[in-house]
Amino acid sequence: MTALLPADLDTELAALLGDGWRTDANERLTYGYDNSRRHAMPDAVALPRTREQVVGLVRACRRHRVPVVARGRGTNTTGAAVPVAGGVVVSFERMERIVDIRPGDRCAIVEPGVLNGDLQSALAPHGLFWPPDPTSAAFSTVGGNLACNAGGPRAVKYGASRDNVLALTAVTGAGELITCGTATTKGATGFDLQRLLVGSEGTLALIVEATLRLTPAPPARRAVRAIYRDVASAAAAVARLMAQPVTPSMLEFMDHHAVRLARDVGGADLPVDAGALLMIEADGDAHALAHDVDALRRAATGDGLVSLDDAPDEAARAKLWAARKALSPALRTLAPGKINEDVVVPVSRIPALVDGVQTIAREADLPIVTFGHAGNGNLHVNILYDPADASQHERAHAALPKVFALAISLGGTLSGEHGIGLAKRDFIPHAIDAPTLALMRALKATFDPDAILNPGKLLPPA
Amino acid sequence: MTALLPADLDTELAALLGDGWRTDANERLTYGYDNSRRHAMPDAVALPRTREQVVGLVRACRRHRVPVVARGRGTNTTGAAVPVAGGVVVSFERMERIVDIRPGDRCAIVEPGVLNGDLQSALAPHGLFWPPDPTSAAFSTVGGNLACNAGGPRAVKYGASRDNVLALTAVTGAGELITCGTATTKGATGFDLQRLLVGSEGTLALIVEATLRLTPAPPARRAVRAIYRDVASAAAAVARLMAQPVTPSMLEFMDHHAVRLARDVGGADLPVDAGALLMIEADGDAHALAHDVDALRRAATGDGLVSLDDAPDEAARAKLWAARKALSPALRTLAPGKINEDVVVPVSRIPALVDGVQTIAREADLPIVTFGHAGNGNLHVNILYDPADASQHERAHAALPKVFALAISLGGTLSGEHGIGLAKRDFIPHAIDAPTLALMRALKATFDPDAILNPGKLLPPA
Repeated sequence: MTALLPADLDTELAALLGDGWRTDANERLTYGYDNSRRHAMPDAVALPRTREQVVGLVRACRRHRVPVVARGRGTNTTGAAVPVAGGVVVSFERMERIVDIRPGDRCAIVEPGVLNGDLQSALAPHGLFWPPDPTSAAFSTVGGNLACNAGGPRAVKYGASRDNVLALTAVTGAGELITCGTATTKGATGFDLQRLLVGSEGTLALIVEATLRLTPAPPARRAVRAIYRDVASAAAAVARLMAQPVTPSMLEFMDHHAVRLARDVGGADLPVDAGALLMIEADGDAHALAHDVDALRRAATGDGLVSLDDAPDEAARAKLWAARKALSPALRTLAPGKINEDVVVPVSRIPALVDGVQTIAREADLPIVTFGHAGNGNLHVNILYDPADASQHERAHAALPKVFALAISLGGTLSGEHGIGLAKRDFIPHAIDAPTLALMRALKATFDPDAILNPGKLLPPA
Repeated sequence: MTALLPADLDTELAALLGDGWRTDANERLTYGYDNSRRHAMPDAVALPRTREQVVGLVRACRRHRVPVVARGRGTNTTGAAVPVAGGVVVSFERMERIVDIRPGDRCAIVEPGVLNGDLQSALAPHGLFWPPDPTSAAFSTVGGNLACNAGGPRAVKYGASRDNVLALTAVTGAGELITCGTATTKGATGFDLQRLLVGSEGTLALIVEATLRLTPAPPARRAVRAIYRDVASAAAAVARLMAQPVTPSMLEFMDHHAVRLARDVGGADLPVDAGALLMIEADGDAHALAHDVDALRRAATGDGLVSLDDAPDEAARAKLWAARKALSPALRTLAPGKINEDVVVPVSRIPALVDGVQTIAREADLPIVTFGHAGNGNLHVNILYDPADASQHERAHAALPKVFALAISLGGTLSGEHGIGLAKRDFIPHAIDAPTLALMRALKATFDPDAILNPGKLLPPA
């Protein structure tokens, strides 16, 4: 029992959800955060087991105009899962069944609460995988991945979440159960609602079942580490790599700050004249792989290349990846505070982005370290500062809109894979023009006429 | 001057469009058909040169509640371009510029009227291509391909139109110019409107510019022709082919009727015990190709295989494809009338589809020939009949809903690549459930509040 919700709604939902209805303050507390480190207290937490319960819950909340906030495991970084307007958090942790795996159809049907990592484990014996591989994969849900259009390093070859969904069943803000798409890899029948729902951050509908497009797992992979004199040389190599037919399965970039940090702080084995680094991977079967790695080595070779190492086995591969892995701990030693945003630009504009970010860093008098998924032009820009230092705090947060403005001016946008949530919501009018934003608001109202789904997220207040 | 439109609208649009405004009956006549062989007379034809003209035209037509029907080159097979409610046909033949090709970003920016084939020619020197390859590619437009989510044989490896678009600029039925997406291969910023517009058949907005995702052109290809004892053996091979890591660049199927026709009528060199046929292609560079073809040959091999031939060069390849090419002329000799629909089912259900179609054929006492894009489960079902024979005509058209019901019962849907238009519109309620269809109607009203865009298409009357 809680005094925060209308008493009859509380009664109705307690009856509907049984032990999946929680109003105890201690329990609600843990459902109020996400990995953005924001927190807001929900009025109740629902743990549905069936789509029918989700329909009943949304309809009941709609009658009372009570917010409904879908939640996977809260790994997103933008505040998208934080119930800033209170209401009911719907955690899908009890809807975590893998309903079906159909290897011949290259698809799997899952409930939204299944963990990405658990799904991959279940797919492995079939020689299949689901491409999205966010850093959080071991402990983030497929529903959350879909809600945020999660990506990861593999997206350069295999696409992000939106590219790997065939069909969705979902409950709109009107409480209607809709079925979008079919379990087929082609379709030209009606409007494509499933890809519209992907990345909509729970503002249009709650996904209750997903039919995922699977890919045959490559039996082997090989990594190449390319070190360049400077960022421009590395960026030119990225363009060459993406213009030839062998698409790398990963193409990760580290700017000169990231390289220096990995070496000087993280202890990675990197030469002093390393001004930028690319980690390039190919995957496939063993025979084709040797040839593909040759093609990637040729494309990586050019003006400004300092060294090119490849890894014949998994141990050597791990050694090459050590520089990248050393980076995150090194970042933490440099400054206690970090704003990490994941802007995206056309691949050819990576040098302009990195240069522009360094200009912003000089103006802010703060280190900004850039690394990430170069093959998609999706770079993580890390503004480092001490939150206890008021001036640094202010300069860091003043630098952020400049980074966004820079990405937009280069033909890119605010986010490649993290999404918008609360963190970037107020920058949306800079990225999306007024008529298009007005249409998005109208679409939101079509799916969710009483604006109960995840209020305050993704779209700024009108 | 025409009496069919309000005089002040005619005057306004004549001033806006200059020599791109046509009201002469002879000229209008040629814009009233499409490849469905349906015809309806438009009241006027607009040939805009700029997006501003399109905005002005839609706003003016909206004020007068006059229909606006977008048109590429009218190659679609569903009646989607036929102006059944009259109004203004907007032909994009004068908006046919390739605005930019950016090889490093793997994208091209084009106006909607550019022909698919002309785009491919312009991309070839850059070593790139745009994947959609409908049969009509030489004379269909990119805008039309996007409006219908056109596919083709290559879609099994490279996706259909929806999978190969990054951003769209479009004019909604409200006359608003919207910009959806960015020229980046990843994005998590707002709702994905661009993929919603693809396949919407001009019912939501008119595309005035497209940023297309390009793929590096494989330097070589090789074909394998696999002949099976029966359809079930061929279908089992399709499932094996799609479950291993080397994705074929084409995977085309012909059922026993199609094989027999190609041999007995088309003169193709095929053994008498051929009960089904697969044309399998791999592409890539020459070195990897030999290995990939080996992998595909292994996957194609299994119970019921009669013969397996591959083509070391283009001449041999053409010889292998001869059976497929002989099919269409052979179909025409068999019966003067043909209903060709392109249902799609999960790959594993191909045998059930082909079997079920033959049951329908027996009941109708008409030949039905099935062939098409097996790797996507997207099969073209051809009901052959004599339109001059009233009984055959009736039986043929009575068989069609049974084919659709069969595809839907197998977890598939009405169309994989042709779209809905008029031809399949009234079957939509069988493929899309009532709440989802209601939402699609509401979305349509959000984009096009006065229902002026391509009225009567895709969605059945409420």
